[in-house]
Amino acid sequence: MQEKDRSEDEFTVTPWEVEGDIDYEKLIEKFGTESVDEELLDRIEDVVGETHFMLRRGIFYSHRDLDRILDEYEDGNRFALYTGRGPSGHTHVGHLMPWIFAKWMQDKFDVELYFQLTDDEKFLFNFDSTLEETHSYALENAKDIIALGFDPEKTHIFIDTDFIHELYPLALKVGKRLNFSNVKAVFGFDNSTNVGSIFYTAIQSAPCFLPSELEDEDIPVLIPCGIDQDPHFRLTRDIAETIGYLKPALLHNKLAPSLDGSGKMSASRPKTTIFTTDEGEDVDRKINEAFTGGRVSAEEQRKKGGDPDICAIQNYRYFIFEEDDEKVSDLAERCKEGDILCGECKQILKENLKEFLSKHQKRRKEAEEKLDQFLMSGYED
Amino acid sequence: MQEKDRSEDEFTVTPWEVEGDIDYEKLIEKFGTESVDEELLDRIEDVVGETHFMLRRGIFYSHRDLDRILDEYEDGNRFALYTGRGPSGHTHVGHLMPWIFAKWMQDKFDVELYFQLTDDEKFLFNFDSTLEETHSYALENAKDIIALGFDPEKTHIFIDTDFIHELYPLALKVGKRLNFSNVKAVFGFDNSTNVGSIFYTAIQSAPCFLPSELEDEDIPVLIPCGIDQDPHFRLTRDIAETIGYLKPALLHNKLAPSLDGSGKMSASRPKTTIFTTDEGEDVDRKINEAFTGGRVSAEEQRKKGGDPDICAIQNYRYFIFEEDDEKVSDLAERCKEGDILCGECKQILKENLKEFLSKHQKRRKEAEEKLDQFLMSGYED
Repeated sequence: MQEKDRSEDEFTVTPWEVEGDIDYEKLIEKFGTESVDEELLDRIEDVVGETHFMLRRGIFYSHRDLDRILDEYEDGNRFALYTGRGPSGHTHVGHLMPWIFAKWMQDKFDVELYFQLTDDEKFLFNFDSTLEETHSYALENAKDIIALGFDPEKTHIFIDTDFIHELYPLALKVGKRLNFSNVKAVFGFDNSTNVGSIFYTAIQSAPCFLPSELEDEDIPVLIPCGIDQDPHFRLTRDIAETIGYLKPALLHNKLAPSLDGSGKMSASRPKTTIFTTDEGEDVDRKINEAFTGGRVSAEEQRKKGGDPDICAIQNYRYFIFEEDDEKVSDLAERCKEGDILCGECKQILKENLKEFLSKHQKRRKEAEEKLDQFLMSGYED
Repeated sequence: MQEKDRSEDEFTVTPWEVEGDIDYEKLIEKFGTESVDEELLDRIEDVVGETHFMLRRGIFYSHRDLDRILDEYEDGNRFALYTGRGPSGHTHVGHLMPWIFAKWMQDKFDVELYFQLTDDEKFLFNFDSTLEETHSYALENAKDIIALGFDPEKTHIFIDTDFIHELYPLALKVGKRLNFSNVKAVFGFDNSTNVGSIFYTAIQSAPCFLPSELEDEDIPVLIPCGIDQDPHFRLTRDIAETIGYLKPALLHNKLAPSLDGSGKMSASRPKTTIFTTDEGEDVDRKINEAFTGGRVSAEEQRKKGGDPDICAIQNYRYFIFEEDDEKVSDLAERCKEGDILCGECKQILKENLKEFLSKHQKRRKEAEEKLDQFLMSGYED
């Protein structure tokens, strides 16, 4: 029993590796972040007039200096949002979660959003990838971002290799202040780590200072992102003031679990991941094969009920797909009572997903024509 | 005696540190390069129809694959020249030495020349420098390059932070193949080295592949450069073929010694360095204070003669300032015989230098208007 407990505590969370059963509360302790508590949730609701299900459900559950950003906002000072995506493949539905939230934040606070697509990172950290591939995925991913309905006037998407002229001077300032010991300690690098990967964190730091640089005034930045990205910004925060910028603030989300019930949804495990480009039949197949909390037989499930807490279908709803808290808890209750079987429950999700994907794919198609409105190359500046 | 011998052998040559009394033959052994021997000198003379005093005098004394470049040239295939400068300050006369040679090579072989100005490097490796300073020095240095009369049609100067859009994808390909062990072994880095410096060698490698990338065909590159820069390109050569490019070839020069008679001329030791922006009175003062091979008194010197081999004045002539071998050896002979004293000998150099600087400064002024003809920003491409 002891041994099982211990093994359950074992997990790894870095920007490039998420393994094991993550204890999110322990991660707060380990990373030294703060909980998004009731007081902070109430404050956000007071400030913007409503809340978001991802805050209510504790999906965005940890932060650094979010209270400072709210102070600034209430003092009438603007801030900027910054988030990103590593283009290792097509966008999956799990990726949309923080983007949908970022859009809500942008709408509510009426702020600029800077969206980084790190084709360089995915090239450097995946040995077999080519820059042509990661750049091409970055463009594909950009269509998904645009399809979510972001305002082109306030939303600035950039691909690292295209926008490097603006990023590089900032990255140099960061890179001069971080040494190998620093990145070794935070990312677990060793002597066999390639020198591109060693420098890379400076490129991910650069956009924290981009709004201040572009506007030529101090603009605080808030980064909604997966908790796995925190190590980068911990380093950024350590050196920000020494190079003359404000520390970035963060709001961290838990990682959407994969359809096989473990780890985080990953574009590199296509069988357990719903992509935004998937057809109806892909959705049917993947959901049919998804891990659930069901019993061995329909009879037993009707008698003893299922376990929605470990169910990937329930997780999809909870994390991304069902804004209505009541619907989520109703289905969980019915599952526990043996009132609904996995087949029926999966059918509901399949229909929701297919409806969503059909609309998204239409908007994604339209987004192809809008890329120029959103993409910053740095050339115009 | 043994001890003295041993201490005389102690010297350090890296791209960022040149200390001690350099044994250039030992360096060939240590770095694993090849001597520019009589056979190769004859071959160059055969190919281009003349020789250059810097080759004759063994100033360009070591190489990697220069014979391969000559093979290519004789087969009717083009190659490109690549050299560079770290803009840590104003250009000094010692810097002009390899540039003058590069111009001769360009003229004789009728090839393109790519000239890198590494404002990023000088920012990363000098703690107190700012990017604004190193970028501004890069522009100042560019004027000196242009003032030497390079052909704008075939000469492409670029400043790293301006041209990074073209360099970064190539640097990523290099940076993915070099790990911390590799750069540690070659440059002596340790855990306290900043991550920008760790990555930097990839940026200096990038231009080796730029001609091939810009022209979309395999173009071999020959790099005339100081022997202290060899460690960068040793790494480049190790990985070039694995990333689909030709290995760069090199032709190494000895480092012009400083006016105090030791180390290499350095912009960070202004008192012992003649800058291209110096006035006549600066030249007089610096040459007056220069280290010579003279005796304690005029009388003794007339009797015993001076030692031109250790004389900074003689070195200036030998390395940069006097193309005519006979004039150089005549003055050295007269010195040894006590036939000429330091004052008179310095006077000749002062006049030569002032005449050169006056012309150079005029052409440098004209170069201000020509910067656009030479500088590549990468934006036009």
